[in-house]
Amino acid sequence: MTIAVFDSGMGGLTVLHALQDRLPSRDYVYLGDTARLPYGTKSTDTVHQYARRAAAFLMPFSPSALVIACNTASAAALDLLKEEFSALPVFGVIGPGARAAASGDGHILILATESTVASGAYPEAIRAIHPGASVTQIPCPLFVALAEAGWTDGPETEAVIRRTLLEGGISLPFSGTVLLGCTHFPVLRAAIQNVCGPDAVLVDSAQSLADDVCGRLAEDRGSGKIRFFVTDNPDRFFSIAPRFIGREIASEDTELCRI
Amino acid sequence: MTIAVFDSGMGGLTVLHALQDRLPSRDYVYLGDTARLPYGTKSTDTVHQYARRAAAFLMPFSPSALVIACNTASAAALDLLKEEFSALPVFGVIGPGARAAASGDGHILILATESTVASGAYPEAIRAIHPGASVTQIPCPLFVALAEAGWTDGPETEAVIRRTLLEGGISLPFSGTVLLGCTHFPVLRAAIQNVCGPDAVLVDSAQSLADDVCGRLAEDRGSGKIRFFVTDNPDRFFSIAPRFIGREIASEDTELCRI
Repeated sequence: MTIAVFDSGMGGLTVLHALQDRLPSRDYVYLGDTARLPYGTKSTDTVHQYARRAAAFLMPFSPSALVIACNTASAAALDLLKEEFSALPVFGVIGPGARAAASGDGHILILATESTVASGAYPEAIRAIHPGASVTQIPCPLFVALAEAGWTDGPETEAVIRRTLLEGGISLPFSGTVLLGCTHFPVLRAAIQNVCGPDAVLVDSAQSLADDVCGRLAEDRGSGKIRFFVTDNPDRFFSIAPRFIGREIASEDTELCRI
Repeated sequence: MTIAVFDSGMGGLTVLHALQDRLPSRDYVYLGDTARLPYGTKSTDTVHQYARRAAAFLMPFSPSALVIACNTASAAALDLLKEEFSALPVFGVIGPGARAAASGDGHILILATESTVASGAYPEAIRAIHPGASVTQIPCPLFVALAEAGWTDGPETEAVIRRTLLEGGISLPFSGTVLLGCTHFPVLRAAIQNVCGPDAVLVDSAQSLADDVCGRLAEDRGSGKIRFFVTDNPDRFFSIAPRFIGREIASEDTELCRI
């Protein structure tokens, strides 16, 4: 009863972490496409191709569900993968994140990668729930680099966040809902909250997705084991992963693969 | 008499710009591997594979020289490509950059990507010229994102540069030579100079490489035409390119290709 999770790299570990919190006895297989990261600056066609390869790689593990942890890949390729792999439930982060955002009050601010913003997937999903919702999206090209560099707080990080929001037309402090629409962004949560002020309510698509998966799949008595695969540079994966999953990842649990 | 130039994306346009300044009548073909960028976080094996594919793509244009504009690819794959494509001169940015840095006085500070730093290519090339040279390398994972976002100046950019240098153990102001060891970094030149102070001498491997190519290849009476190829997302290429090449790139000069 393995749950297969894929991501462009390490950001999806925040989703895996949220899943494990709720379904700790499940087995997991996680694929990080570190040879091609980031997806957030790539075109829809290219993300389609990468997502398809990632999903095909995971099928031999006979997963009982496939989770697209990456927001960019969810925005671009969820429908495609649902169609191609119709024998199992396929989850993406956009729907659950949009539901969490739409349940809040006031203006909704979506922070995401360039590609996720360009896709328009979040505003569309939010307006399908609340047609009159007031939504602003801001591409945050520096946030992934901040998260991967481990600059999760400090004045420089807050300065970058502040400038990004101001250039996106947001007045600070911000009161309303802030959707963290990229798996890297939860590690910047405290800094984003500081910049937005105490009246901003931050929601995290990783948590919403995990709630969603948990509602569809029961816990079972598996071993709780996780196998990690990366398409490149396992050493970089090991060094950065703890920021996203909150613990060390053992090198014997991780294999380099080509997809 | 075409000169073939390849890069992981748009940073190499700074090299193309420097080449065109010196050899304006040459024809150029430029390949930006935007489907796989950045190279700076990828492993040596993966960069080998990408560089080989990029070079193979360019061979049908019968170039009279091949220029590896990307520092990461030059550090990882110059020897490999020289061997595989021994019929034509193959240029990388490491040697010329190291010569420019070694000709200065005082301590040498190398700012580069994670992969270029990990390769040790710059310190090795500098110490081959000046065995006793005092060299510090600092990986600058946020600088590429700053350059691509167009945040070439301002307090946030200087704050990021300052923190990067301080975390790398550099005392500010810095007096000595600063090698801009990534093709993205020349667009941050003014901000880096401000942070380092007036006694820092910035050298740019793009300029040194162009001098080197110019010394080996004569000007000819070509049309001065450039053809651009990108492996993904031409729209993003058009929007970011002017920062690196100082002018607009026409969409009719650019083709999407698969390598």
